[in-house]
Amino acid sequence: MTRQIVSKLHGSTVRISDRAITVPGFRFGVAAAGIKAEGRLDLGVIAPDEPANIAGVFTRNRVQAAPVRVAKSRIRAGKASAVLVNSGNANACTGAPGLAAARATTAALADRLGVAACEVIPASTGVIGAPLPTERIVAAMGGLCGALSAEGAADFARAIMTTDQWPKIASTEIALGSGSGRGRVLGIAKGAGMIHPDMATTLVFVMTDIGADSKLLQQILRAAIDATFNAISVDGDTSTNDTALLLSSGRAGRVRAGSSDARQLSDAVTEVLGALGRSIVRDGEGAKHVARIEVTGVANDAHARRIARTIATSPLVKTALHGRDANWGRILAAAGRAGVAFQPEKAELRIGDEIIVRGGMPVGREAEERAAKILAAPEYTICLSLGRGKGRAHYLTSDLGPDYIAVNANYRS
Amino acid sequence: MTRQIVSKLHGSTVRISDRAITVPGFRFGVAAAGIKAEGRLDLGVIAPDEPANIAGVFTRNRVQAAPVRVAKSRIRAGKASAVLVNSGNANACTGAPGLAAARATTAALADRLGVAACEVIPASTGVIGAPLPTERIVAAMGGLCGALSAEGAADFARAIMTTDQWPKIASTEIALGSGSGRGRVLGIAKGAGMIHPDMATTLVFVMTDIGADSKLLQQILRAAIDATFNAISVDGDTSTNDTALLLSSGRAGRVRAGSSDARQLSDAVTEVLGALGRSIVRDGEGAKHVARIEVTGVANDAHARRIARTIATSPLVKTALHGRDANWGRILAAAGRAGVAFQPEKAELRIGDEIIVRGGMPVGREAEERAAKILAAPEYTICLSLGRGKGRAHYLTSDLGPDYIAVNANYRS
Repeated sequence: MTRQIVSKLHGSTVRISDRAITVPGFRFGVAAAGIKAEGRLDLGVIAPDEPANIAGVFTRNRVQAAPVRVAKSRIRAGKASAVLVNSGNANACTGAPGLAAARATTAALADRLGVAACEVIPASTGVIGAPLPTERIVAAMGGLCGALSAEGAADFARAIMTTDQWPKIASTEIALGSGSGRGRVLGIAKGAGMIHPDMATTLVFVMTDIGADSKLLQQILRAAIDATFNAISVDGDTSTNDTALLLSSGRAGRVRAGSSDARQLSDAVTEVLGALGRSIVRDGEGAKHVARIEVTGVANDAHARRIARTIATSPLVKTALHGRDANWGRILAAAGRAGVAFQPEKAELRIGDEIIVRGGMPVGREAEERAAKILAAPEYTICLSLGRGKGRAHYLTSDLGPDYIAVNANYRS
Repeated sequence: MTRQIVSKLHGSTVRISDRAITVPGFRFGVAAAGIKAEGRLDLGVIAPDEPANIAGVFTRNRVQAAPVRVAKSRIRAGKASAVLVNSGNANACTGAPGLAAARATTAALADRLGVAACEVIPASTGVIGAPLPTERIVAAMGGLCGALSAEGAADFARAIMTTDQWPKIASTEIALGSGSGRGRVLGIAKGAGMIHPDMATTLVFVMTDIGADSKLLQQILRAAIDATFNAISVDGDTSTNDTALLLSSGRAGRVRAGSSDARQLSDAVTEVLGALGRSIVRDGEGAKHVARIEVTGVANDAHARRIARTIATSPLVKTALHGRDANWGRILAAAGRAGVAFQPEKAELRIGDEIIVRGGMPVGREAEERAAKILAAPEYTICLSLGRGKGRAHYLTSDLGPDYIAVNANYRS
């Protein structure tokens, strides 16, 4: 049992844990349906006691898996009676039979739970292009629903893993200002930094007992994803199956859009997603370092984001980070090709607190050697300031080491 | 002496060679100025007998080296009396002293040759951020200009190498329709696929004896670069120093814009640049394969180009190519995130002549195994067709193997 405090914000604490964490109004179930080999867990369900309000954010990839297409359609009504997740098979690039399989498996779960099939939201992760083994999944429904438990979040987190080295769970509590007590936000994710696109979909499920309508949930989820998961890069690729869902049981009172309680809920969801995102970047194969790339001083946030993303996805920058090399030339060159106007002679680059470029020119070899020591740490910040503009953005990235190549060149052979 | 026919077009043959190739009206010189260690060649000059017409295309990186800034300004007049190139030092991120160094070294060459300094075009490649050793370069002018030779192209190609494993020279001849005989196009390049941004600037110098005004030369060079060097990716990074120049001595008659001779010249320049570009991709560290990524069937060429580029720069695709894995899922997923609308269910993917995806779905394991055999070849084509649109584009890329990581993580340490 590990219990690590990962951040504090507004007096609340986000914890990464593999202990049983509960959220009033939600139960979880798992099963081994035989999608994966060797009897490993490969099926999970999130079952709200009553239909929950729900919001969703999905991959923008033009190639979208069958469960993504079904889920997008079903969450429009704003209600979910269950979420059915399988690992081991992405049900992507599977055509019309894939859509039928997503509908058949969710219908079987709906029958078992006595809920409407159109309120069962599917999500899948695993190999692309193989038919979903519908019969095995349907046959596993008894086991899946037979032992639903409010304490099943940790098992659920394990059942949805693919190439993950560890399950990813984060939670926090907030005190509602209305005096209606405390509320909880629990997030469960899987993903190892998009390293295996065949198997490394990012799935994120956030449950809260704080009540909110689905429109407010959608706003909160969208903003939180933009600030966290959309500012993550391991290799720049995005999956056909990426799915984030936010469910509210409403057991702990209700918050309204624009209220301070709504802002608290929004901050809590962002913090939980941030902790899960860092855990995913840290889990990238071969990754030894998590770097936060901050860009400031350009005209607007969109420009800053474009530069931060170009730096964060540059293989040359990422290999330099692996070599603990304070290679400011690669960082400036990446910034320069982001397609954003700035004056290079105003560039200032810091690694941690060490300034290694000032006025667009290197400070000196000694500063770079001190910076190289900072690059030995598991986490650090690289800050590029480009002038006086108010635009700022950040991106999380990892280093690129030989394990990445070994795994990605060979794992299908 | 190797002499390899690399392509034939319109009856002309492009040859890659390290033999002495001459172009009437141009002489070449080299020297070891002590910029590189151990007395290696690091200085080269292209000296037209009379001021040549010139055109140039330069890096779009916002961070531009001092020689790029000076060269861009000087070629506006359309005339060049010499091109001065050094390797071993990029003269980039060097501020005002860097600009002064570019001016001082070109002025010294102008004095020696008795030409106007504003007609001497500088280009540099090598380490970023170190001051250019102006005095050493000035001191080497005697040797550089003392033995100018029409047969010096091969030595020049060697003098401008940095991390290149071999010099890159390509040439072709064309018969002018006007009956004024034959003309020659000679191209010399350096670059190993932008693998070392500190040292792997791409420099390209194309000399022809066919006469053309600088405006026509600019059109020809721009179009040829877009079709060749701008469709190359080893890792997506572009340098602070990239420079392409096209010089015309006019010894072999004169072509006018819009004439069939002008089209012939344009084709010849494109073919020569294409051969040099393939040689650069092949020279990427650790690269074992050159893949031509073709995209067809989308709305327009710009969309096709965006998709081709996204596939060509995806580390996941490139590592799969290294592993000779017909990983269509990674290719489709990369296409899907290019930000271009298409219908995935119309996707057809071919590796060589082997169709592995049809109607957005995999054809089968046997087809993938046959495709894997094609991926063992040093060069092959991957063609993604996405519908009936007329847009098409291609991109050259290389595989991404462990040598890339080893070199790029460690070479500065």
